[in-house]
Formats: sequence, C-alpha cells, structure tokens
Amino acid sequence: MVRKLKVAVSGLGRMGARHAINYLERTPRAELVAACDPNPEVIAWAKGRLEPSGVTLYTDFDEMLAHAGVEAVIVAGITTEHAPQSIKAIRAGKHVLCEKPLSTDVGISQGVLDVAKQYPHLKVMTGFSRRFDQSYRNAWQKADAGDIGRPVVFRSQTCDKYRDDDYFIGYSKNSGSIFVDASVHDIDLSLWFFGQDSIVKSVSAVGTCARYQGLKQYGDVDNGVGIVEFWGGKIAYFYACRMMAVGQHDMTEVIGTHGKLTINANPTHDLVEHHESTGIRREIAQTYWDRFEPAFIRESNEFTEAVLDDKPLPFKLSGAVKSLQIGSALQESLRTGKKLFFDETGSPIIEKVAKL
Amino acid sequence: MVRKLKVAVSGLGRMGARHAINYLERTPRAELVAACDPNPEVIAWAKGRLEPSGVTLYTDFDEMLAHAGVEAVIVAGITTEHAPQSIKAIRAGKHVLCEKPLSTDVGISQGVLDVAKQYPHLKVMTGFSRRFDQSYRNAWQKADAGDIGRPVVFRSQTCDKYRDDDYFIGYSKNSGSIFVDASVHDIDLSLWFFGQDSIVKSVSAVGTCARYQGLKQYGDVDNGVGIVEFWGGKIAYFYACRMMAVGQHDMTEVIGTHGKLTINANPTHDLVEHHESTGIRREIAQTYWDRFEPAFIRESNEFTEAVLDDKPLPFKLSGAVKSLQIGSALQESLRTGKKLFFDETGSPIIEKVAKL
Amino acid sequence: MVRKLKVAVSGLGRMGARHAINYLERTPRAELVAACDPNPEVIAWAKGRLEPSGVTLYTDFDEMLAHAGVEAVIVAGITTEHAPQSIKAIRAGKHVLCEKPLSTDVGISQGVLDVAKQYPHLKVMTGFSRRFDQSYRNAWQKADAGDIGRPVVFRSQTCDKYRDDDYFIGYSKNSGSIFVDASVHDIDLSLWFFGQDSIVKSVSAVGTCARYQGLKQYGDVDNGVGIVEFWGGKIAYFYACRMMAVGQHDMTEVIGTHGKLTINANPTHDLVEHHESTGIRREIAQTYWDRFEPAFIRESNEFTEAVLDDKPLPFKLSGAVKSLQIGSALQESLRTGKKLFFDETGSPIIEKVAKL
Amino acid sequence: MVRKLKVAVSGLGRMGARHAINYLERTPRAELVAACDPNPEVIAWAKGRLEPSGVTLYTDFDEMLAHAGVEAVIVAGITTEHAPQSIKAIRAGKHVLCEKPLSTDVGISQGVLDVAKQYPHLKVMTGFSRRFDQSYRNAWQKADAGDIGRPVVFRSQTCDKYRDDDYFIGYSKNSGSIFVDASVHDIDLSLWFFGQDSIVKSVSAVGTCARYQGLKQYGDVDNGVGIVEFWGGKIAYFYACRMMAVGQHDMTEVIGTHGKLTINANPTHDLVEHHESTGIRREIAQTYWDRFEPAFIRESNEFTEAVLDDKPLPFKLSGAVKSLQIGSALQESLRTGKKLFFDETGSPIIEKVAKL
Repeated sequence: MVRKLKVAVSGLGRMGARHAINYLERTPRAELVAACDPNPEVIAWAKGRLEPSGVTLYTDFDEMLAHAGVEAVIVAGITTEHAPQSIKAIRAGKHVLCEKPLSTDVGISQGVLDVAKQYPHLKVMTGFSRRFDQSYRNAWQKADAGDIGRPVVFRSQTCDKYRDDDYFIGYSKNSGSIFVDASVHDIDLSLWFFGQDSIVKSVSAVGTCARYQGLKQYGDVDNGVGIVEFWGGKIAYFYACRMMAVGQHDMTEVIGTHGKLTINANPTHDLVEHHESTGIRREIAQTYWDRFEPAFIRESNEFTEAVLDDKPLPFKLSGAVKSLQIGSALQESLRTGKKLFFDETGSPIIEKVAKL
Repeated sequence: MVRKLKVAVSGLGRMGARHAINYLERTPRAELVAACDPNPEVIAWAKGRLEPSGVTLYTDFDEMLAHAGVEAVIVAGITTEHAPQSIKAIRAGKHVLCEKPLSTDVGISQGVLDVAKQYPHLKVMTGFSRRFDQSYRNAWQKADAGDIGRPVVFRSQTCDKYRDDDYFIGYSKNSGSIFVDASVHDIDLSLWFFGQDSIVKSVSAVGTCARYQGLKQYGDVDNGVGIVEFWGGKIAYFYACRMMAVGQHDMTEVIGTHGKLTINANPTHDLVEHHESTGIRREIAQTYWDRFEPAFIRESNEFTEAVLDDKPLPFKLSGAVKSLQIGSALQESLRTGKKLFFDETGSPIIEKVAKL
Repeated sequence: MVRKLKVAVSGLGRMGARHAINYLERTPRAELVAACDPNPEVIAWAKGRLEPSGVTLYTDFDEMLAHAGVEAVIVAGITTEHAPQSIKAIRAGKHVLCEKPLSTDVGISQGVLDVAKQYPHLKVMTGFSRRFDQSYRNAWQKADAGDIGRPVVFRSQTCDKYRDDDYFIGYSKNSGSIFVDASVHDIDLSLWFFGQDSIVKSVSAVGTCARYQGLKQYGDVDNGVGIVEFWGGKIAYFYACRMMAVGQHDMTEVIGTHGKLTINANPTHDLVEHHESTGIRREIAQTYWDRFEPAFIRESNEFTEAVLDDKPLPFKLSGAVKSLQIGSALQESLRTGKKLFFDETGSPIIEKVAKL
Repeated sequence: MVRKLKVAVSGLGRMGARHAINYLERTPRAELVAACDPNPEVIAWAKGRLEPSGVTLYTDFDEMLAHAGVEAVIVAGITTEHAPQSIKAIRAGKHVLCEKPLSTDVGISQGVLDVAKQYPHLKVMTGFSRRFDQSYRNAWQKADAGDIGRPVVFRSQTCDKYRDDDYFIGYSKNSGSIFVDASVHDIDLSLWFFGQDSIVKSVSAVGTCARYQGLKQYGDVDNGVGIVEFWGGKIAYFYACRMMAVGQHDMTEVIGTHGKLTINANPTHDLVEHHESTGIRREIAQTYWDRFEPAFIRESNEFTEAVLDDKPLPFKLSGAVKSLQIGSALQESLRTGKKLFFDETGSPIIEKVAKL
C-alpha cells in the first residue's frame, strides 16, 4: 500500500478548516488523522465534516499531539498560539507547518527558529502561500533564468477588499498591524527575488486611516506605503491597503536591469468579460482565498512530499523571521515617523535626533 | 464512515490516465477500485501508479465490469469502443461517464442514448468538459440572469496549437474530422446558451488545409469555418483550427440584445506578464489540458455527486447526440460544398441541384 | 511659399463637415477653398465655421466645381450623388476623394472606375478609412514582413453601438444594407491582407433582426454573419452588427500559417481603467469617428501628398468596386438564403435548384 | 478673416522643433511667425522646413522678441535659458508657454512666477503635457465627479526606455536629476488629483545606479523611489527609471476611499496584438513623444485658445514651482539619505542629527 503522511491540524477556524479539508481531500499522499479546536461550535462542525472520514477530534492541543501515529502538525489556530504549539510539536518530534506569522513578535518567532534548529531532521515551515502560487513560481523561474537581468527594484502590494464591518479593526488587535500582517508576504517575496541573504540598509514608511478610524488605537492604518533599501543597490517598496473597492488585488513587479516581470498587474478572476453599456467589465478575486486557493493546495502537497521523501522545503524558516523583522521595522517607522538605518551587518544604527 | 462511489476506468491512455488519477486522488467522494487497458505498456505504468493505492487492474473490459462493487464506469479508451463499452456498462447497471464523442457516427451515438433511456435510474453522461469550466459557468449564470438580454449570435472557436508531427492526421483518421471532433464542443456550448431545444435551420461550412496536407485524404481540414442558423433568428458561427502558433486558444462570445459576454477573448495562462525589449508578452495554455484541467476535476466531482445524491446531471445525454448531428452536418457541408437546409422540425430538406 | 493643394468639399453633413474641417485645419499641405451643400441650414453653419477662413460656399455642386483653382474635390454628400459628382469632377480634371461607397450599386460603381481609367493622371480614391489606421498599418507591415507566415483565415467585424432611435432603419434605406454598408470595410481589409487579386470561390450569409424589426422591409438585418471563400485556400468571415451595447467594436484577426495578428481584439478608448466594487471597467469608442478620427486625418494628408508629389495612392479604386461586389453577393446570399458559387475567374456559377 | 495668434518659438532642438511644427500646422488658431535658435545647423533645417511657410528665422532671442506682431512666445531652448527668456518675454508683454522646467533651481523658478504676477493680463504657462492627455483628463473628470470617493493614495511613475548611449548622463548634468526632471510630472499630477493647495508633511527617497554608473557624479540615479506625505492623510509615492526594457511606461493610479482609477496600468501603443509561438505580444510607446504627442497638440491649441479668448489656463504657474520644490526635496532626501519633515505651513523642520 501507498504510505501516507499522518497529519493533525490544530485550529479549525476559517483557515484551519481549509487546511483540514485540504489534507483530508486534496493531498493524496497525506492522511488527516486528528484535529483540535477549543471552540465547541467548531468541533460540532468538525463532527459533521471531518469525523465521518475517520478524523479524531480533540479540544486540547496536547491530547491531539499524543494521538497515535501523528507525524506532522499543521498549526493554524489563533496567532498567539502559533509559536507555543509549534515548539511543542517540534519537541514532540513532529514535522510542522505553521500558519503565518509564527508570532507578531520578532523575539518569539526567533524562539521557534531556535528550537527548530535543534531538530534538523524535522521539516518546519511557515505558510507563505504565495511562494506556492503558479504565477509567482513562473516569474521566479524566469528571473532565475536571467530573463530580466539582475533584479534591482521590487514593488509589491497586498490590498484587501473593503469590508463593511469591524473585521480589520479586530484583526489588527490580534494579528499584527498592516506591515506585519499584510506586507510580510510582499517582504518575503522581495527576499525570494533579491536573495534571502539581502541585508536591509534603511526602512521608511508612512500611512493613513482613510476608512477605519478604529485602527488608530492600535497604531495601525488602512493604507501604508513603505520603502526598504537593501545594501548593494536594491530597493523594495510596498503598499498595503484594507479598502480596495474591487476586490483582493495583490500584485508584484520585479524590475531588472534588462526587463521586468509583473504578477497580477492586470488582474482577473476568470476568463469572462462583460460588454455592457457602460464599458467592458471584468471581475477579480474577492478574497485571499479566491486568489490563492490553488497555492494552498500545492503547499499541502509539497510539504507532504518534503516530509515523505525527505526533500528540502522550498524556503527556510529563517526567512519568516527575517520578513517579520523587516515588517516590524516598517511598522516602527510608521509609528515613529522616523526613517530607520541599518549597517552592513543589518544591525540598527541608533540616531539621536533633537529638534532645534 | 463516509460512503464513496466505487469507480472503474476503462482506457488508461492520455485522457484515461488523467481520469483515473482524478478519481483516485482528486474526487473525495469517489474511490477508484478498478481500471483496464488492453495495452501491456499502459498496464505496466498502472502497476506503478494505481495498483499500490488498491486499484485492481484488468486487460479486459468485461472482466473489469464484473469487478465486485463497481458502481460507475468511466469510458475513456479508443473512440470506437466508447459506444459498445457504454452500452455494456449501462446494461450491467452501472452509471457511465463516457468520454466525448460517444461515436463519430450519429446512429451509433443515438444507440447509446436509446439504451440509456431504458435505464432511467442510471446517470449516463458524456464528457463535455467546458460545461464544468468556471468561466463558462460564470458567463452562463450571467446570461441566464438576463444580463445580456436575449442571446442572438454565438461565436466560438476551438484552436489547437500547431504540432510538428503527424498527430492531427492520425487523430483525424480515428476520432472524427475537425467539426465533429473539435467544433462539437462549441456546438454544445451554443445549445447551452441558446437552449437545448433550438432547431437548426441551415448549416454551411468551408475549410482549408494550410499546414497538414495529409488531412485531405480523410476529407478533413486544419482550418474550418461554419455557420449554423437556428429557427427563431439565432445564429452560431464556429472556427476550428489545428495550427495556432501561440497555444490552445478556445474562446467564445455570446452576443445578446443588450450586451455581450466573452470567455477567453483575452487569453492568458497565468498572471505573469514579461516586459522585454520587443514588447509585453504573456503566455497562454499550450494544450486542452492546460486550459481545462480544473474543469475535468469538477466534472469528476459533480458526476460522483449526481450519482451518490441522485441529483440531476448538469446536462442531458441527448445533447451529445444533437451536437454530433450538427457537427456532422457541418462536416458534410464542408465536404460537399453545399449549404444544408432543415425544416422547422429539424428534418433535412433535400434539394436537387443541377448545374446549368 | 509652400504650394498647397486647393481642395473643395461637396456635402457638409456629418462626415462632410468633418472632411471640410480636416482639410481646413489638419492637412497642412492643403487649402480648403470651396465647399457646397444644398441644405440652407448646413450652409448657415458653414458661414460661421468655414467662410471666415476664406472658404467660398455654394449650394450647387457644378458652380463649386467651376470655382477658380480647385484641384481636388472631396465627394461626401448623399450616397446617390457619390458617383455622379465623382464622374463630373474627374471629367473636369479634378482629383477626387469620394466617400465610401461609390454607390450601393455595383454597375454604377464600375462606371466611376471606367471614367477614372480614362484620366490616369488624376488621383481618384474612395474613403476606406481603416486603411489609414495606425493599428491596421502596423499589422499589415508585420504580415507583409512574413511575421505570421501566409495569411489563411481572416475574421473581421464591424459592430455599431445600439441607438435608441430609427437611425439605422433610415440609413438602411439610403446607404445600402449591412454587408454593403458595414462589412464592405472588412471585405476591403481581407483583400488588403490576402491580396487585391484574390478571387472569390463562394459566398454564404445569414442574418437576423434582433432589435430593429423595421430593417426587414429593406431586406436588411441588424446582425449578419457571412463567409467568403477565396480560390487558393483562403477564407474570410465577417460579422456585422447594429446593436452592440458597449460601443463601436470593429475588430479584425489575421490568422497565418505561423502566427496571428489581432487588431482591436481587446478594445479600449483610452488608457484609463476604473476599479469599482463590481469589477474593473474600461470604456471603448462609442462611434466610428471616436475610433477612426486619426485615420481620417491621415487619409486627408496622404491623399494631398499623393496629388502634390504625384505619388501612388495607397490602394486602387478598383478595390472599392471589388469589395462592393463581394458585399452585394453576401447581401444576395442573405436575402435568398442561397450559397453562391464562382468559378476561377470569379464569374458566378448559376445553379438550378428544385426542391423535391 | 479669422484672427490668429502670432506665435514665436525660441529653441528649435528636438522639443522646440516639435512645438514649432505644432504651431505651424496643427494649431488652427495660431500662426507661427518667427523662430530662433543659436545653432547654425538648426537654422539650416528651419530654412527648409519653416521659412517657406513664412516663418522669419533668428539666431538671437532678443531680435526675435522684437519681431513685429509677436503676441506669444514658446520658450523651448536649453533649460538654463528658460527662466531668463520667459522673464524677458513677459516684460515685453508677450504671453509665454515655457517648456518644463522653468529652472532646475527653485529660487530661479520662483523668480519667473514673481515677474508673471506683475503682468496678470498675460497668460504664462509651463508645459506639463500630461495635464492635456486624454486619459488623464478622463480620469480626473471621474475623480472630480466623486467616482472613487476621496483620493487618498497616489502612485505614479515615469519610466524611460533604456538607451545604449550616454544620453541620460549628459541630460542629468544639464536638466536636473531624476526626481526634478522625471518625477516632477508625477508630482504635478499628484497635486492635480489631491488639490493644488496640498501641503507636504514629509519626503523620503532612495535610489540606485543600476545601469548608468556615470550618473553618480551628479548625485543622480537611474532608479529612484520616493514617498511624499501630505498633511491631511494623503500619500503620494513615485518611481522614476531610466532603464525600462520595453519602452516608455508612464503610469498612474489614484486610490480613493471608494474606488481606484489607473492610467496606463496596462500599456499598449496601438490596438495590435501579435500571437506568436512564445506568447501574445504587444508593443508600447518607445518615447515620451510616442506616448504624449496628442497631448502636446492639445496643449498648443488650449494655450492659443486661452490667449485669444482670454480664458483661464488649465493650471496655474505656481504649481510648477511647487512641483519643483517637492522634486528638489526628494532629490535632497536621496542625496543625504535623510527623511525631510515640513510643518503645517509647508516650512521645513530642521533637525539636528547626531550619530551616537
């Protein structure tokens, strides 16, 4: 018989449920054997959707971790549990795929990395889903093949569709502010295209609250623009937004010395165009899931394959910490209004500024 | 435990293998239990790929049909076996999904339909994959909602990428000529948007062999254009081509009294654009599979769901026969150079034509 | 001083007024010296707009023709006057640019051509404005350079925006039916790309009245589809429409053995896209003038240059007659429901058809 | 007779020659009566191209200014002469259209403004050609009508095609560095959409020399990114580049609280697409002139109309000084590496920065 990876999923909220179903039904080499969530309503849902397929349900993470035969754990619950659960799972000898971010705190994230380093035989990955997207993969292969010369300028944006509720405000409270939560994807991509060993030289950011005034209490904004300058003459600049009218518009362009690649500059959700009296209209993805669902499936499958075949993961866990560091620096720059500087080792240069 | 539909696949060639894997790995509510193919090389492949997952392999269709517990059969071998195997399977009480076409012969296709009518509790479907494509679904919903008024003109094309070999010539010999093999998809779509009960008034077609002279021996062409006029003032026109340079470009537009919908008028394979010194370039799907893979997966899942939950199939088997009739009429018009006429019941009007 | 071509314009209706202003203000090497129109209201307008710039106004064509120094006449009045005025002007030794069509009657058009042949030193041109469009020119140069191999299939459409009045019905009465008035542009383009000496083998057309029932009285339709087969394995197919919701969408594609060129497959009026909650929307040209204004200006300038520098015109007058012949054949096919056949000299093959 | 504005053009280099021809041939209400250039080769060209149309040529600006009847002067020579010639012309009672920039120096530019204010009856304008572009006009009208709510974030780029010579290096020496020369257009547009009275709060810029190392000697870069934060929660960010492979790609997006407008996000030079074996390719404008030629013609005509009919100019001269101030601040930020801050009156906040 075919050997399948025994997987457990922690957290069955929106993303966790999707992960659970992906491992249950869309990852042929994996077998979902257990899942946990502290929320009784969620467990009730899982009893209908997962249990009949042979998934054992838990309300306690530790009990799930002890489930016989579990080889890999998907950590997908609330952000504050990402790091502790990941560390527990690693120490229990499990492979770990932890939803992004490891933590909104750089030190805590680094802590996961430190533990993971002690277990080099385990695969520990964080969920930078765009790395698994077909379009980003295609662009990266072209860039890697030298089609645009040397990448010099990188522009990337994460723009969520406006929601007529308080979702983003609550989200800001728990999941990190805009550069840490949203731009971290773009930052990770910049490191992918520029090289993981790129070192930040300066960081500068501004932002504004145009529609969600409630974000101010968390030092957050609904529109943020930031520039990250790397040593060696490379520049990345980012835009994050919580109020797009049209939908989820995440896009990237990579400008090289001899050409440019764009990813989703010209967005469309499917291949339909509607010719009507006011013009030609096309629809775009409404949510992150609309846009990246196939990438999440590829993520599940490649993580499974990496474990079963002992292949390298497509990117290193340390990158997640580095992206968070940069996102946190952008956030600090936003909050203080200051431009931040770093030396050629990436260490911050502290300046004393006095107004005359 | 979850009940799963026990499926057997007949024919493990290019498309058959894809169907087998779709039922094995990408159709959660189905279980692939058996497969057959007369070709030893193909069976050798299946021993490595399917058998370890518990699929029993056969070289004989009848033996496979007798495999314990099989509920549904996917008929995906050579075209000439589509009808006989479908009929056998139906008579054995199995649900059937038969690859397109049932036959290149209208009478034989009708024969399958006649048998299927005797077993109304069985789900019998033919594989018009575009019916399961997200973009066509979206367009159809818009049209059905009245967004473009009453559909009046329908244009659709199936254009294959040029291949530097004899594939299309051999294909023409076995699988039907261009209007029967390729345009039949577009014809089916025209019936979907105009109504399955639309009645043909006239048919006219022309064609040419621009790159594959070998097609002439089969009365076939590599570029064909045809017009189908329906009673009630509706017009469909079709283009089929075997020599596109850029890739597989299948597109459709539906022109209504108050708007127009296009599907893939502006093709792209992913969301990457390459800015290079000669212009901005984007790539498109290279093959039918590139373009319609997700539709095939949805097809497997919806067929499975229709059987398990006794839901109606998304379209009727009789449509396949009707599309083939129209495709055959186009092919006859191409070969004879004549325009063909039909009365308001759809019966051909025979004309005696004498050159002066 | 710079020598300027002395031009007179006959007919100051919508298109005539545009021609007059183009020669007055946008054709540096031309000088508009005279204009005529029988309509007093139009003359009143011209007194304000043209006379102050030194243009002498007439209500009578013959008087205008006698205006001292006129070298070239633009014939842009009602269609029935196109041929007679053009012939008069040619016989008076004037160069002539006659608006399209010379006539809706093939014989009358041929008459203009016959007269023009007697005056080979005169430049006589008809206004196929698309021949002067930058995009068509670019495409033609690419095709001529062999970029798509040998052109084999040609598709072209002329689609007018729906108007909520009787304009198209009145227009049909006076200016020829849809294939003669609208598709004639597409036919002319097919001859440009296939070669002016291409010979028609068969013609077949269908049509329907979807929104303008009043067209039926003139044997006309608001949606027409036609196929023109040329000897030598070339196929052109055409679509003409009077009810587009979105605007004026004239487009063309040229399919060669090794590539394809499209012109306006992806229409847009300017470079703006509007991202709004229902999608991304772009506007397109609303009228023929919106789409082709720059082409009309280039037409004026190139006609002027051809006369002043005795250069060949960009295309021959005989092409206009040939396009009209093909358009008339399509119209006949539409009206009779018959497919028409032609021999290798282009002469019609008469068939006796008797229903059994 | 129609009254025409008598125009003189100073400087017949690349842009000056285009202005001269625009006033000579494409501005119906203007008459080019005189032109000057100190360069004998340029005058030789003008003797062939302009003199035969009645244009008097001069090598000396003052002599040209004294030419009888000149009402308006187009100042289009070398940048260092823009301000002195504009001031002379104003003082001589002439209307002035001065090519951009008035000067690369803020103080000198302000000097022109100060003089112009003394002659309020004269029309004095600087050539921000994008203000006359049809697409920008369309977008602005939509924004002004409230279609996107309140504009909050503005992104704009000026990207020149790479040239395989030293042009940009020489250009940098004479015409100002990248933010002053190129981004000044984008800055001007941001003021148009945000309101001319917007007040800068902070400015931050970085850059790199990726292909033209010779720019470093002038403190310039070939890729620059800058953020301008305005008081009131508005953010503009800019990208300027001298090494685009594909052509001249100037684009803008205006993000409002309720929608977004893009201008040239999806660039194309004409309506042709080329389907070839490597993909679908479209070409874009290669130069600024390719992209904005119609805008320059509209500029000539609207300037002429403003003078003849005593209408207000479409934007104020003070905007040019303000844009230059912001461009200079970006350039200073680039050179010093510092973020610059301004108070609510727009006055710079000086900080004393000491590294610890």
